[in-house]
Amino acid sequence: MAAPMERILIVGTGLLGASTGLALREAGFSGKIFGWDKDLGQLRVAIERGAVTEAISDAGQALAAAGDADLVLLCGPVYSILDWMQSLAGQLRAGQLVTDVGSTKAQITAAAEALFVSPQRATFLPGHPMAGREMSGAAAADVALFRGAAWIFTATPQLLPTTEQQDLALAWRQWVGRMGAIAIDLDPVVHDQQLAWTSHLPQFLATALAAELQSRLDPDPAHGQIGGRALREMTRLGSSPFSMWRDIAATNTDAIAAALLALEQRLAHIRENLRTPELREEFERANRFRSRL
Amino acid sequence: MAAPMERILIVGTGLLGASTGLALREAGFSGKIFGWDKDLGQLRVAIERGAVTEAISDAGQALAAAGDADLVLLCGPVYSILDWMQSLAGQLRAGQLVTDVGSTKAQITAAAEALFVSPQRATFLPGHPMAGREMSGAAAADVALFRGAAWIFTATPQLLPTTEQQDLALAWRQWVGRMGAIAIDLDPVVHDQQLAWTSHLPQFLATALAAELQSRLDPDPAHGQIGGRALREMTRLGSSPFSMWRDIAATNTDAIAAALLALEQRLAHIRENLRTPELREEFERANRFRSRL
Repeated sequence: MAAPMERILIVGTGLLGASTGLALREAGFSGKIFGWDKDLGQLRVAIERGAVTEAISDAGQALAAAGDADLVLLCGPVYSILDWMQSLAGQLRAGQLVTDVGSTKAQITAAAEALFVSPQRATFLPGHPMAGREMSGAAAADVALFRGAAWIFTATPQLLPTTEQQDLALAWRQWVGRMGAIAIDLDPVVHDQQLAWTSHLPQFLATALAAELQSRLDPDPAHGQIGGRALREMTRLGSSPFSMWRDIAATNTDAIAAALLALEQRLAHIRENLRTPELREEFERANRFRSRL
Repeated sequence: MAAPMERILIVGTGLLGASTGLALREAGFSGKIFGWDKDLGQLRVAIERGAVTEAISDAGQALAAAGDADLVLLCGPVYSILDWMQSLAGQLRAGQLVTDVGSTKAQITAAAEALFVSPQRATFLPGHPMAGREMSGAAAADVALFRGAAWIFTATPQLLPTTEQQDLALAWRQWVGRMGAIAIDLDPVVHDQQLAWTSHLPQFLATALAAELQSRLDPDPAHGQIGGRALREMTRLGSSPFSMWRDIAATNTDAIAAALLALEQRLAHIRENLRTPELREEFERANRFRSRL
């Protein structure tokens, strides 16, 4: 049976944190949602939008509030989540649940195994909703952000050894379902390898294209028009914040490097075959991929 | 003063041809719109949707109808436009206008200079609306496709030497404006070089990414979900038809190869700097490009 949840603390009330607050309330969560953000502007917007019911403006108070929370949700770049895991592990107690929305999962899951596996300690459920926007911040939060999206969990058996801990995890999984997301379980290393191809590679391609065009084209606003929809779409992710992606690049370096190298080689193959029948095969492969997406 | 237009022949009633027919009627064109397509299915859909008022099912009859048209609009892949230019040049007479929507402009403009520059011949105005979709065909035609889009013209002084010819061109430019598009003039070689970066490179990147993922990932439909919006968006153009892009690759090979090589080098630079401060500079360049788009 899932454990009841009355008090939630969201650590980091930016895009994902504030969207979760909004979606939880929309889904019928009637308890208190405490929120902390190191950026007081984000926190104010989260309060104004109703994503958070109680604002905590100080990190020390956030640690204290965590001690009273049924659930602590860690949002933000991967290294800030790892820092909070360090701070929280010794402060919480059995029966509390900590979960996160970090973009890479191998290091976070390993840290959870090192910090949270003990009968006295809180339970840690590593999570990653496959929802985001190129805009960041509470102002971009969206109550519908998770509807129809996958919400991946990478718990290992070590992290949920007891029925009580599995019940705590189940309670959060049920809220994830009520927010409209689809819970999916993956091995943390498989998660990071898979995401290198399906999420990190698309981001770095968009960054590379936008950076290349920034260096290459004169600053004529007509280029946007001349490029049309394809250009806007293929560079949209170029707006993504470095702060988030620095931590992804640093915590999934080898898998991302392998994906980038493969793409470089495929682009070279296309470049060498612009006038040969090989080009048709590349388009047909791409058409097939799209037809099953 | 712009010449009046009563009879238009659209050669190729696929996405762009049928969208033009729909947009012309919406913009108040009350004359006849003849349409021909080598694919009778496309032609039937164009008639059913009201993009064309008179269907011509035979290429010979299309040539004859061209002789009576005020305007002939050539749509389709670049080589098919070049073929029609060859067929039409000797059949038409002064006072008629031929224009096109071909994706590359250097070869078409050069062919126009070779075929249409003579006092007895029709006037040729090379054009390229910066509007498209990853879907092709008359079924995907959209009356609003050109609204707010640039419609580039690459006429050289040789192509429009007389006031009468400039008036013919003006008449079509006015219809382009009434369809909601913004006429822009560019040198044909500059057009092709510019488009290599802002249109062709984004397409080949999307094709490369989708083809790589097709080869790499197991055919699990969950991947689409796991990748999320970024993956769908960055591979959307992977659905583009090879027939169109084969001709673009073949008629703009050098510029596309240069753009692809530059992108390969930038991806390699990013790959080698996933853990260095250089990565921040790439994200900042990309952010700057997006902020002015």
